[in-house]
Amino acid sequence: MSHADIGLIGLAVMGSNLALNIAEKGHTIAVHNRTASRIDDFVAMAGPLAERVVPKADLAEFIASIRRPRSIIIMVKAGKPVDEMIEQLLPYLEEGDAIIECGNSLYTDTDRRFAYLQGKGIGYLGVGVSGGEEGARHGPSIMVGGAKAQWHNAEPVLKAIAAKFKGEPCCAYLGEGGAGHFVKTIHNGIEYGDMQMIAEVYGFMRDGLGMKPAECAEVFRKWNEGPLNSYLIEITGHVLDAVDPESGTALVELILDKAGQKGTGRWSAIVAQELAVPATTIEGAVAARSISAMKDERLEAEKLYGARRGAEISLSLDTLEKALLAGKIAAYAQGFAVMAKASEEKGWNLPLGTVAKIWRAGCIIRSRFLDQMSAAYEGGPARNLLLVPDFVELMKANHGALREVVAAGAHGEFPLPCLGAALSYFDAYRQGLGTANLIQGQRDFFGAHGFERSDKDGVHHGDWPATIQVEAAEPQV
Amino acid sequence: MSHADIGLIGLAVMGSNLALNIAEKGHTIAVHNRTASRIDDFVAMAGPLAERVVPKADLAEFIASIRRPRSIIIMVKAGKPVDEMIEQLLPYLEEGDAIIECGNSLYTDTDRRFAYLQGKGIGYLGVGVSGGEEGARHGPSIMVGGAKAQWHNAEPVLKAIAAKFKGEPCCAYLGEGGAGHFVKTIHNGIEYGDMQMIAEVYGFMRDGLGMKPAECAEVFRKWNEGPLNSYLIEITGHVLDAVDPESGTALVELILDKAGQKGTGRWSAIVAQELAVPATTIEGAVAARSISAMKDERLEAEKLYGARRGAEISLSLDTLEKALLAGKIAAYAQGFAVMAKASEEKGWNLPLGTVAKIWRAGCIIRSRFLDQMSAAYEGGPARNLLLVPDFVELMKANHGALREVVAAGAHGEFPLPCLGAALSYFDAYRQGLGTANLIQGQRDFFGAHGFERSDKDGVHHGDWPATIQVEAAEPQV
Repeated sequence: MSHADIGLIGLAVMGSNLALNIAEKGHTIAVHNRTASRIDDFVAMAGPLAERVVPKADLAEFIASIRRPRSIIIMVKAGKPVDEMIEQLLPYLEEGDAIIECGNSLYTDTDRRFAYLQGKGIGYLGVGVSGGEEGARHGPSIMVGGAKAQWHNAEPVLKAIAAKFKGEPCCAYLGEGGAGHFVKTIHNGIEYGDMQMIAEVYGFMRDGLGMKPAECAEVFRKWNEGPLNSYLIEITGHVLDAVDPESGTALVELILDKAGQKGTGRWSAIVAQELAVPATTIEGAVAARSISAMKDERLEAEKLYGARRGAEISLSLDTLEKALLAGKIAAYAQGFAVMAKASEEKGWNLPLGTVAKIWRAGCIIRSRFLDQMSAAYEGGPARNLLLVPDFVELMKANHGALREVVAAGAHGEFPLPCLGAALSYFDAYRQGLGTANLIQGQRDFFGAHGFERSDKDGVHHGDWPATIQVEAAEPQV
Repeated sequence: MSHADIGLIGLAVMGSNLALNIAEKGHTIAVHNRTASRIDDFVAMAGPLAERVVPKADLAEFIASIRRPRSIIIMVKAGKPVDEMIEQLLPYLEEGDAIIECGNSLYTDTDRRFAYLQGKGIGYLGVGVSGGEEGARHGPSIMVGGAKAQWHNAEPVLKAIAAKFKGEPCCAYLGEGGAGHFVKTIHNGIEYGDMQMIAEVYGFMRDGLGMKPAECAEVFRKWNEGPLNSYLIEITGHVLDAVDPESGTALVELILDKAGQKGTGRWSAIVAQELAVPATTIEGAVAARSISAMKDERLEAEKLYGARRGAEISLSLDTLEKALLAGKIAAYAQGFAVMAKASEEKGWNLPLGTVAKIWRAGCIIRSRFLDQMSAAYEGGPARNLLLVPDFVELMKANHGALREVVAAGAHGEFPLPCLGAALSYFDAYRQGLGTANLIQGQRDFFGAHGFERSDKDGVHHGDWPATIQVEAAEPQV
């Protein structure tokens, strides 16, 4: 009997869908699962694809059935189960084999596992897979990091199952260690920002312009034909269009305004902080979800402060569209700056143009915008997106609209944690002379931290009055 | 010979100043330092206070010279040096003795050390000390966490050296493990926010209203007599007043607008994210410092986008003062919410009213405002500050000004990462009906995450169209 091209362990929804995708693309795949009955269920579900499936309830037989050097995808819960699975596999593996972990792992865990297995001659690939269940089944975006030699063994299979953008597979090797999982984390942070900015714009439509869900849906459908064309804009139209069959009411008006989160947005905010790269749009989006979840407190606060005064909003839909585009540019500038810094610190040499390329299809944030970005970054250095020519033009054309929207939000009492953060980021970034000179003066005053001067080199200190009493704060009235 | 009341290891600036403070308050103190010459220098510097100093170059003799149960302050560099010092001390310590670590440690390190020493019968206190070098010498704010029994042994000394607010020492035991260092971390995050909001307001004065530094100083002096009365407002006046003796120019105009940071602001942002509590004002302040440091990029961006258009700013100084107060309330609401959540998760039972109390003098963020806060929180539950009666009234009176300022910033191209975040937080928090219903619809659409409904219990799913192609993002034009 011939050997399977690849193996896969973990036949829950994502694992099953990846396995079916692999079989469908003509590759033979050995499958294994701790609970053996799942293997039978999977074979039954595979239908005619089962002819390319090699089901193995015994782990040793499973491993023996895979062509050497082996590529073994593991799709188990992130965290300890991954480490346990690695230990289970190790006794059976031979030099040159590879474990390909496709869950949502923390990139530092992947770094650690990569180094651990490298010491044993086993390749470890940490792979971010985006696109949800549908993507896994029909074509996800695949962000690969880890052992480069073993990547080449698995490359034909992973490229075959990936989403295609104009025929190009949305799958690439991005760097060593945890590079793939890191990029997936930032992808999710950017996704949080995209979704929150759409929600902020929807707020103006609903509460400022008095539009019904179906009218909003119509606008998003129209926007999806322009520069905002993207999966998230498209599905926003569908979400706004859906009607509850029982009541005949627009479903979106029945959905409770309490957002859930599974933690990857927070992760991306934390890694950005750890790298000391501003990511206020991701942070604003995460905060918005957290505040949304405090529904009881919000209702109490609304009683105390009164309802939104509902100032007249005179924003045009065209202004909202442009503001969303400008906000998106600032948000992506942050996300890509985080990746550029990580690449530098970790020595990954992340190809940012390629990242934009493999996000053009399959993943949740896929968009026309990313096609422009991949072109803009192609071959160039990892510059901030706000300095990249095509995007400078776009930003010039659209930041005025973002200003109008942020000002309208302030006056009209519309919370804009993400669009507001995007504008502040842009304005801080494009300001040659900022106000941190005052902060440096304060820091030197109370902590003797020193400051640079614009008129001479070196670190300087002020000759501050020494007589500030430590009890100065005591009320003087 | 009688024993010293307390011991201290580590005679760099902060340690020396604490030791002098202790001796000055009438307590005998044994001192030790790895480099013995520093001990001699310290004794020489102590002058007449040296009579209460017991210098010991030998570690065993140092320990033996302290009254039992011993309280030993260690003031060494955060990180590994603390762990090494603990190991060095352990062989000499007896049950009931305590190590009191007064550096800027990560609270999780303190948690770990507390648990480790608890298993050995040794008390570990992690103590946040705020007030800089001057504070250490004359009266800092002291945030104590860790072993409660041993706290009582050290309490008289620590309360004696602390800053006093109307006679009350700014020193308190806040909770087990890393509670003290945690509170110090949040203190620093709030400090970042206070400083950044002041810098943002200064930006309007300088670039919007065309005010000279001395004119700005005059305004801050006046504000220091009102509700904004605080150490930071006071020193801002001094910083703006300072003149470079060589050139006769206002010093603040010669200080380079590149802010430094030593990492505690980032830590506080990270702990807030880890606890899933919105802290966008801290994040905005950290981001502002990071962006300020990218001076070259900013100059390049300014060339590309042109200078700020300098729209006419018609804000009054009164509006700026009120906006600063409103922003401050929102920022403190976030900081205290982070502490409330940490208290709950860690079982610390942090007394938030007491935290506000011991911040009223000695520390960098000391202010009249904190006196109001301590009264508002006294004995009450740990509610969000935006729901506390006195602050509801303050916020009602001042959020209108914050709106004007944020709108003026948007139109006038003034970056407001901190004031803008404060307003968005307030508006999101006081909004009974938000827009996260749309986000929940999107999440269910692409990830089958489910949503709650306002009209019935349980978790629901939409009946979404299944035909969204994974290549939908491909340009249609």
